[in-house]
Amino acid sequence: MIVVMRHMAPPEEVEAVTSRLSRAGFQVHLSQGVARTIIGVIGNDTKTRLPGMALEAMPGVEKVVPILQPYKLAGREFKPENTVIRIGEFTIGGEDIHVMAGPCAVENREQILESAYQVKQAGATMLRGGAFKPRTSPYSFQGLEEEGLKLLAEAREATGLPVVTEVMDPYTLHLVAEYADVLQIGARNMQNFHLLREVGKLEKPVLLKRGPSATIEEWILAAEYIMAGGNYNVMLCERGIRTFETYTRNTLDLSTVPVLKQLTHLPVIVDPSHGTGKWKLVQPMSRAAIAAGADGLIVEVHPNPSEALSDGPQSLNPENFAAMMGQISRIAEVMGRRMAGMPR
Amino acid sequence: MIVVMRHMAPPEEVEAVTSRLSRAGFQVHLSQGVARTIIGVIGNDTKTRLPGMALEAMPGVEKVVPILQPYKLAGREFKPENTVIRIGEFTIGGEDIHVMAGPCAVENREQILESAYQVKQAGATMLRGGAFKPRTSPYSFQGLEEEGLKLLAEAREATGLPVVTEVMDPYTLHLVAEYADVLQIGARNMQNFHLLREVGKLEKPVLLKRGPSATIEEWILAAEYIMAGGNYNVMLCERGIRTFETYTRNTLDLSTVPVLKQLTHLPVIVDPSHGTGKWKLVQPMSRAAIAAGADGLIVEVHPNPSEALSDGPQSLNPENFAAMMGQISRIAEVMGRRMAGMPR
Amino acid sequence: MIVVMRHMAPPEEVEAVTSRLSRAGFQVHLSQGVARTIIGVIGNDTKTRLPGMALEAMPGVEKVVPILQPYKLAGREFKPENTVIRIGEFTIGGEDIHVMAGPCAVENREQILESAYQVKQAGATMLRGGAFKPRTSPYSFQGLEEEGLKLLAEAREATGLPVVTEVMDPYTLHLVAEYADVLQIGARNMQNFHLLREVGKLEKPVLLKRGPSATIEEWILAAEYIMAGGNYNVMLCERGIRTFETYTRNTLDLSTVPVLKQLTHLPVIVDPSHGTGKWKLVQPMSRAAIAAGADGLIVEVHPNPSEALSDGPQSLNPENFAAMMGQISRIAEVMGRRMAGMPR
Amino acid sequence: MIVVMRHMAPPEEVEAVTSRLSRAGFQVHLSQGVARTIIGVIGNDTKTRLPGMALEAMPGVEKVVPILQPYKLAGREFKPENTVIRIGEFTIGGEDIHVMAGPCAVENREQILESAYQVKQAGATMLRGGAFKPRTSPYSFQGLEEEGLKLLAEAREATGLPVVTEVMDPYTLHLVAEYADVLQIGARNMQNFHLLREVGKLEKPVLLKRGPSATIEEWILAAEYIMAGGNYNVMLCERGIRTFETYTRNTLDLSTVPVLKQLTHLPVIVDPSHGTGKWKLVQPMSRAAIAAGADGLIVEVHPNPSEALSDGPQSLNPENFAAMMGQISRIAEVMGRRMAGMPR
Repeated sequence: MIVVMRHMAPPEEVEAVTSRLSRAGFQVHLSQGVARTIIGVIGNDTKTRLPGMALEAMPGVEKVVPILQPYKLAGREFKPENTVIRIGEFTIGGEDIHVMAGPCAVENREQILESAYQVKQAGATMLRGGAFKPRTSPYSFQGLEEEGLKLLAEAREATGLPVVTEVMDPYTLHLVAEYADVLQIGARNMQNFHLLREVGKLEKPVLLKRGPSATIEEWILAAEYIMAGGNYNVMLCERGIRTFETYTRNTLDLSTVPVLKQLTHLPVIVDPSHGTGKWKLVQPMSRAAIAAGADGLIVEVHPNPSEALSDGPQSLNPENFAAMMGQISRIAEVMGRRMAGMPR
Repeated sequence: MIVVMRHMAPPEEVEAVTSRLSRAGFQVHLSQGVARTIIGVIGNDTKTRLPGMALEAMPGVEKVVPILQPYKLAGREFKPENTVIRIGEFTIGGEDIHVMAGPCAVENREQILESAYQVKQAGATMLRGGAFKPRTSPYSFQGLEEEGLKLLAEAREATGLPVVTEVMDPYTLHLVAEYADVLQIGARNMQNFHLLREVGKLEKPVLLKRGPSATIEEWILAAEYIMAGGNYNVMLCERGIRTFETYTRNTLDLSTVPVLKQLTHLPVIVDPSHGTGKWKLVQPMSRAAIAAGADGLIVEVHPNPSEALSDGPQSLNPENFAAMMGQISRIAEVMGRRMAGMPR
Repeated sequence: MIVVMRHMAPPEEVEAVTSRLSRAGFQVHLSQGVARTIIGVIGNDTKTRLPGMALEAMPGVEKVVPILQPYKLAGREFKPENTVIRIGEFTIGGEDIHVMAGPCAVENREQILESAYQVKQAGATMLRGGAFKPRTSPYSFQGLEEEGLKLLAEAREATGLPVVTEVMDPYTLHLVAEYADVLQIGARNMQNFHLLREVGKLEKPVLLKRGPSATIEEWILAAEYIMAGGNYNVMLCERGIRTFETYTRNTLDLSTVPVLKQLTHLPVIVDPSHGTGKWKLVQPMSRAAIAAGADGLIVEVHPNPSEALSDGPQSLNPENFAAMMGQISRIAEVMGRRMAGMPR
Repeated sequence: MIVVMRHMAPPEEVEAVTSRLSRAGFQVHLSQGVARTIIGVIGNDTKTRLPGMALEAMPGVEKVVPILQPYKLAGREFKPENTVIRIGEFTIGGEDIHVMAGPCAVENREQILESAYQVKQAGATMLRGGAFKPRTSPYSFQGLEEEGLKLLAEAREATGLPVVTEVMDPYTLHLVAEYADVLQIGARNMQNFHLLREVGKLEKPVLLKRGPSATIEEWILAAEYIMAGGNYNVMLCERGIRTFETYTRNTLDLSTVPVLKQLTHLPVIVDPSHGTGKWKLVQPMSRAAIAAGADGLIVEVHPNPSEALSDGPQSLNPENFAAMMGQISRIAEVMGRRMAGMPR
């Protein structure tokens, strides 16, 4: 960490800062520039303990500039090789590319079973579907809850597809974990720290969506919360950020794929359905995501999108999903990877 | 709601939409323009039931344009007169202006008692202080938890100031509610729907902060969640949104004050501390908030900001806080209002 | 266009709006809903003349909702088939994919010639390079100006590559147009309407970059300015938008590629160099852009990026550029397209 | 400036950076932390010359952290006391508060004369009005051009109010400067560097609007462009930034008022009309702007807003403008300032 003193800060203010740092056990390194005094702070825990010292509130301090990334376990420096997560017979984060697909919400038995068969046939390796739905309006359909989880389990039984479903709060975590193979944490819950901690106590794989206004650093720190509890099976899922552009539901930030691959060792998944909000954009953005280096996709597919109780406008119908799978399998090949659920 | 059909959409696509709407019990009103067919949808529950129909996924539909606001209880149409909330001997939302002040986090007995006495003396009418702290990094100070709540209660005992403190999740809601006079819901929890519902079951006043990327409409819908449960004592707190500007911690959007006053009947509070992240900006933005018509402020004050365990750089020291109170009391007078905690 | 009246707007306010519209020659279509009166406005020029009537300022008007896109010439409704632009022997917007490459700024004869040979050898079909440089700080290198244009012409002479270079203002437009094969309009000039109009009077192809905070609609309207003057040879270039994320220089919004392909008939180019600001992200985002359906790329390449006078951190060196070209040519093949500058 | 080397960067990479810096005439200051080597760079022109060295493109460099502000003439370090600008008999930037008011566009003789008399009567000290209008659509009203300038001059003649009007490009600069007392540079032209340079050659006061996605630093650098040419009479005008919130036209960032007052010595003006886009928000935001410490306002007033050719929905009618003036004069008094155009 670097402390920059104000222009013409008097020596006693510089001294107050350095002596406070020394008392706290840090080494300081003074650098007298032409216009500013700069204090370098050296020590083993500058990453964790220093940000808690409100140095910016001390007289004469202009700004404090962090040097190190604030996360540890999630970083490449801590673990240089890729994390590969096992889900049933599958592995994610290695050579294989996985597509998780299914309806936004579980609506009824027929719908989820039909969806499961259709996405499996097209090459998906996991079934997605919400039983507990976070909805902006209290008057919208909120999901079938436990009944929905049971239907997901039945669909898994029938097709062999592991189930990815959202957990919305610690209350229902153990119920959801009983049925789910992958616990999805939604965008609005990315900084629900209580939920992150509780999920950190399990071993179950977690799909952590990016918050709509989360920086990459905050997102990795949310993963760090889970990992700090002992659960290292975290996948990061880009699903778009909120910007001034309203033509798309969110702005899908595909540059996060290579950025996360550089900064962390965790698998990276892309959600082109929420990322765009329009089914016509799902095919091209799926191709782009795989070309950017994503380890997988999570895509909304509904047997009949215009009858969907939730997110119909962004759901692919089965035909368009199958076409998308064909397209991305060819991109995957160019990337030297293979589609886990498709014949070679 | 208005359904806009695509350019040259064939009659059978128009017919499919109108007949689906009719079957669902809505009246439709067809308008054939030069370039587009437009379908007006009329009915008693267009506000709640229509958004669930995924009309945008039907062939030939270009877009669906909502006409009505999606909330009810929180809107001025439902209740034209201002909501005035009673907190102990005080009322908020009427003529009086209230300032809630205190440290970001309760750190120890001496700090919170000293803070309480200092802010009371300067004219604050409520004590703020966090016992459970949502922190971006798992390695930061997370609050004293129940011990912190007890110290807040002790400070209330000593000064008579009602206590405003954050509740982070439904787990600890009943514990927090036992000690708090006002339940604060933090920005990152604005769409923690489970928490909103649970808080909706109590009668205790709620201070609902705006999420960092929440639109005004989403924010009012979050209040609607609480009100739909029966708790009408909701205050809306502007605390800045996330934008591209990084000089300030957030961008304090003061236009929300008059906007919310037009759209809703709920009291509006402003948090200039989180809204700017820099204590030097707190005085001017406090003045501006009162001049814009806010019903109150929530401000971070610490006996010794540079020793604060959290948010020191944005905390006022007691002297600056007292100066701020003097300034805003004069602005309040111009606004024809009075400072609840200050002599006239 | 739809005019939504306020809740309980009295009949005389509705009447004032409708009679003003009638006087202006529009047909009106009244629709009395449960909670609102809605006025549909029909006529041949609702797209252009109506936005100029300040209906929102009339008493009783809640909001005005546009129905039609505000542009004409640039839209698919006006011209359903793709625009294919001829540049020398090349065509862009059809089957071929083009890569425009070269240094951010022309620095000297050796640098631009070396760059030109290198990018040509790797398969680029056009040479980019700035002679006039828009720089945020007045103290930064501002380009070689006419000397730079001459060096670009020399490099074209030597390699046969057409030249893409930025025109910053109408003053230097004719000078630049004398040397350039494609006129680039930079992001900050996207709404320099005088420049747009002047460029509209030429026939020379234009590469119109998206403004850092321009919506897709505003961007298409900027193209419309050029086309309204008679120059239909416009290419749209996505180069990232400004968001809260600061890890990347901009947020490259690749969803604009398929969106623009749906809304307009113009070629779409992607600039992954400015879009990310980091050379390590250029390869993956180039692949993603082609997979999303882009017609071409514009990429910064410098013989020695760390000695570049401008934008070194985002420039590829020749080796990395050649590797990128290999990667995207394989993606192009999957897309059923071919690299104009590479052997088959 | 601080150069942070990557974790485990080998000594030869560190050496390459330091020796390049030394050759360029800078002193370097090496600081070997636990996890990183950090290189402090010291020298007289680190502010201007260093940013041009693409150090981030050198092997082993993780990031480059600027320490000094990149501007000089506009900064408080260069000139601690406030700049006070003389316009006719008035001074701006000192104790007096000025309100510039008038219609968005000059439409005809009667409209501009009527506006001028009305705003003068209410206490405005300058007349605003556009003769050249930057419009998003090529089909919108583009202003009366020179005819508009002449009408403005006539209104000045009649009322004595100095004229503030926009200059859109260097072509028409001298024409506009002949008629205008203050040259307004619009938001979309904030980084039209050619225009900035040309305006810098005059002595005429300039009102420089903030670009819709400009950071505070970029905005000050735009002022620096003008000042570097010799014209120190620059006023900075906050007019809202583009964010995800669409209820208001822009998000008026009032925190810039105290921020600019700290960082620069230039007068700060607020435009609540463009800043909100809704006339109902203009009164409260005007009060807030003055309470935040602004030196003045620029406000759109039209004799009959619903007939305005441009920006009607955000224009005050004369009655509401007079009411606004009454309100802000009382806020000005609290701030220890006086309204230049109002009786005491």
